[in-house]
Amino acid sequence: MKIISIEHIGIAVKSLENDAPFWKHVLNISHRGTKILEREGVTTGIYDTGRGKVELLESLGDDSPIAKFLEKHGPGVHHICFEVENIYDAITELLDAGVDVIYKEPKVGAEGYLVTFIHPKSTGGVLVELVQNPD
Amino acid sequence: MKIISIEHIGIAVKSLENDAPFWKHVLNISHRGTKILEREGVTTGIYDTGRGKVELLESLGDDSPIAKFLEKHGPGVHHICFEVENIYDAITELLDAGVDVIYKEPKVGAEGYLVTFIHPKSTGGVLVELVQNPD
Repeated sequence: MKIISIEHIGIAVKSLENDAPFWKHVLNISHRGTKILEREGVTTGIYDTGRGKVELLESLGDDSPIAKFLEKHGPGVHHICFEVENIYDAITELLDAGVDVIYKEPKVGAEGYLVTFIHPKSTGGVLVELVQNPD
Repeated sequence: MKIISIEHIGIAVKSLENDAPFWKHVLNISHRGTKILEREGVTTGIYDTGRGKVELLESLGDDSPIAKFLEKHGPGVHHICFEVENIYDAITELLDAGVDVIYKEPKVGAEGYLVTFIHPKSTGGVLVELVQNPD
């Protein structure tokens, strides 16, 4: 498979209101937008360096994946995301290599991106997201 | 301060021998080199997407920062690193904002990069490295 870039780093936060100002005002990374993703149970704040984004993730409720992550690990890096040239090829290769791919058919995420995840047990402890840009 | 890019993601691994093949052969990210950094007590394997690197970190002994991280958290993302335009300006701004900067004078790291770290307590749980490219 062909990985093009580190697309973003996903960071679980307790509160966007309290935690976003560090990324926005102290590190001075440009705020690209904030979105509520009901299906995933999160509000995301996207900050873009121009070469790789930071995605802050606040839970919408007490039983979302982010709420469970925060309960277990506390705030911090939740996942890392690479952009791939072709996500269908990537999934086929990963499955052939015996890797635990969470969505065997890519889901359509924010802004039309095609998305899957690799389970941390196949990567050495890191939740890895792969995306293909629809453009 | 001006952040230019996500320079790399640092990942603590138990064993480069066991864990590197996933990044090199499954994700097919180009291996840039492996170095022993005695001062930091780690062996690093660098994998470069061309737009952001993955730095695998294996401890050289039982009492290095990486050994302690693995003991506390298990393998996974250890730090994230941004490239800044000017690290001296960045440190001054961070200290003025009351942020806990670990090296108040940047250290000279691998390949002549100027390096500092921001303590996780100032970022919402993420160890953040800042580097300035010497070129």
